[in-house]
Amino acid sequence: MKMFKVKSVKEAKRELVKYFNDYRLEIEEVNISQSLGRILADDVFSNIDVPHFRRSTVDGYAVIAKDTYGVSESLPAFLEILGEVHMGEGTDININPDTTCYVPTGGMVPRGADSVVMLEYTEKMDEENLAVNRAVVPKENLISIGEDISKDQSVLRRGLKLRPQDIGVLSSIGIDRVRVYKLPTIAIISTGDEIVEPSEDAKQGQIRDINTYTLSAMAEEAGCIVTRKVVLKDEFQALKSMVEECVDKNDIVIISGGSSVGTKDITDKVINGVGEPGVFVHGIAIKPGKPTILAKVKNKAVFGLPGQPVSAMIVFKVFVEYLIKHIQGIETELEYSIEARFSSNISSSQGRETYQMVVLERDGAEYLAKPIYGKSGMITLMSRAMGYIKIESGKEGVQRGEKVRVIPI
Amino acid sequence: MKMFKVKSVKEAKRELVKYFNDYRLEIEEVNISQSLGRILADDVFSNIDVPHFRRSTVDGYAVIAKDTYGVSESLPAFLEILGEVHMGEGTDININPDTTCYVPTGGMVPRGADSVVMLEYTEKMDEENLAVNRAVVPKENLISIGEDISKDQSVLRRGLKLRPQDIGVLSSIGIDRVRVYKLPTIAIISTGDEIVEPSEDAKQGQIRDINTYTLSAMAEEAGCIVTRKVVLKDEFQALKSMVEECVDKNDIVIISGGSSVGTKDITDKVINGVGEPGVFVHGIAIKPGKPTILAKVKNKAVFGLPGQPVSAMIVFKVFVEYLIKHIQGIETELEYSIEARFSSNISSSQGRETYQMVVLERDGAEYLAKPIYGKSGMITLMSRAMGYIKIESGKEGVQRGEKVRVIPI
Repeated sequence: MKMFKVKSVKEAKRELVKYFNDYRLEIEEVNISQSLGRILADDVFSNIDVPHFRRSTVDGYAVIAKDTYGVSESLPAFLEILGEVHMGEGTDININPDTTCYVPTGGMVPRGADSVVMLEYTEKMDEENLAVNRAVVPKENLISIGEDISKDQSVLRRGLKLRPQDIGVLSSIGIDRVRVYKLPTIAIISTGDEIVEPSEDAKQGQIRDINTYTLSAMAEEAGCIVTRKVVLKDEFQALKSMVEECVDKNDIVIISGGSSVGTKDITDKVINGVGEPGVFVHGIAIKPGKPTILAKVKNKAVFGLPGQPVSAMIVFKVFVEYLIKHIQGIETELEYSIEARFSSNISSSQGRETYQMVVLERDGAEYLAKPIYGKSGMITLMSRAMGYIKIESGKEGVQRGEKVRVIPI
Repeated sequence: MKMFKVKSVKEAKRELVKYFNDYRLEIEEVNISQSLGRILADDVFSNIDVPHFRRSTVDGYAVIAKDTYGVSESLPAFLEILGEVHMGEGTDININPDTTCYVPTGGMVPRGADSVVMLEYTEKMDEENLAVNRAVVPKENLISIGEDISKDQSVLRRGLKLRPQDIGVLSSIGIDRVRVYKLPTIAIISTGDEIVEPSEDAKQGQIRDINTYTLSAMAEEAGCIVTRKVVLKDEFQALKSMVEECVDKNDIVIISGGSSVGTKDITDKVINGVGEPGVFVHGIAIKPGKPTILAKVKNKAVFGLPGQPVSAMIVFKVFVEYLIKHIQGIETELEYSIEARFSSNISSSQGRETYQMVVLERDGAEYLAKPIYGKSGMITLMSRAMGYIKIESGKEGVQRGEKVRVIPI
């Protein structure tokens, strides 16, 4: 059996990227109405100009700017009204010097005009005559052809997770179907002789399954399709068969439990038994989550996560989500957080990147982040948490009053 | 026609709450595997203790702590090994003074023992004798009965949006079905004589529909079911019929377009024509989004949003999402953001709460937030944005170098 040196979080991530650098998901085409949160598989270019006609941004009168220079309320310009532009229609009106026509917000600015005077700076003398009492400059109050999006412009980039406004961009340029990556498929296997289903009666020594539920929900949240959720006893052959089956049918396979140094540490052997290259990281300098396994089998990713619910969730967040983003080609995402002051002194496990769960309390205009204490493996450690702080491996802990960034969980 | 005074954002939100204070969604029961992101309709109590037996948190030996007091590597305690506890099983072993038994991580601590010594601080002399070279205190390395969750304890609160760890809590206490609020239903109506479908050819003066796409995606993101998406001409009777139909079948109806002071301002009249009490806010001191309508018709919420895509999105974010949370009983949620320094001086519309779109750029260890400029109504204003900053109505603007909080959009 190969011996592994514990890797830092950074090194482990680098290994993941190295092993799955070429792994790409298949592509499918979906209607833009079904594309929210999906990852663009191509750069998108516009075939058209938006707008494709000069659009007024106000209710007002289309004019030649020069006709308004120097005007004021006491010295208005008088222009001949040639007619009006209707919403959603083109127009044959041609604005010559000293003429004008009405244009509603969003309406087409007629030929000849180079600007629009807002309604409130005009006075209609009669059906044919308008007084303009404020000057405009060319291009004022209109959007030029292609000013929002120009033809052949790259509008959205490959790897973008589509937001509502991106879908709006697609609809505005007449694209109603779009190529996106297929959702990654994932199988979640939880092992342990002590685990029973939530609906079952838990006898002495038995506990109800937590990990397949929490990890499936996390996978769903990360945009995966969970194809399989299963609890197995710690038996080599049964686990091996299940991993083989899941590796064939999924992009990612998660095994939780069985990766600590207990008497029944079989995950490592099972994975290496299924195929090459097998386990490439066993042990990561992270707390909680040290006994984590990263592996590649038959070109698929297999993760061995600790059995403790809290550790399993942290490792999922830090490594599984990282890989999910990587294989979808997502560019680095911004990490939103809440700034807070830490409420007490805590020491961290030096040499290990530490994830400390916290609750947030209002403290005047600021937030106070209070660490949540509890024994390892308690699920209420997570359910009470509003978020976590990350303590770098080189740091000894966090001081009371220190500024911290709380990340939601 | 009633005349309305422009309301502040705060006043408008207060009115919303006043009008919909008693509005509640129906409740349904779902399997916990389908409950991610759903809103709990009841407080959840535990019927059981978790764990329901004393669980070891380490691989080691169950002992009576007193037997280990004063021991060291040079002066170990010698205990008789009575056997071993198996994962997932109860045990009849009874630990008396000077006896011990092996317990794996997660295994049941046998009667009589009050603590567990980690494996690494023991040495097995032979099958029956163990040397212990480190002292433990009572309760060390075990989780007591009910220490994670105790019987009859309130574990999750009504109004909670279920996260993966909350689902884990439910499974751990044997709850596999849970009562949640039904997803709010919403209909999105976009009006405008100029609007055509993305797949249609846009003639002079016509533009492709953006709002039903962006607003539907936002509604989906906010956890609603979009039952209807429709584009209508600005015709009183057609719009009135559609609003009547949608109000009957949905919790929320959105009408975008038609609420500005243009020639075809009919939304207000349509809403009041459908039922009582009708429009209660028309005009909000927000930028963009001033010509917003808040209304209640036949006990349902109707929003009149500006036709400009950017304004419509902002108003949806600020008011529609607010109401969606309110009717689900969601408690105030934390607002995660990124701290940044503002890149330039901008002035805001004093007296109006201003939403300024920004892009973020790395600037050493900090972020720089740069305002995105563009004419009102450009969809690329939103698609280029990574987030926005909110400028309170009393402020004159933002100074270059000022610290700002960027909220994702």
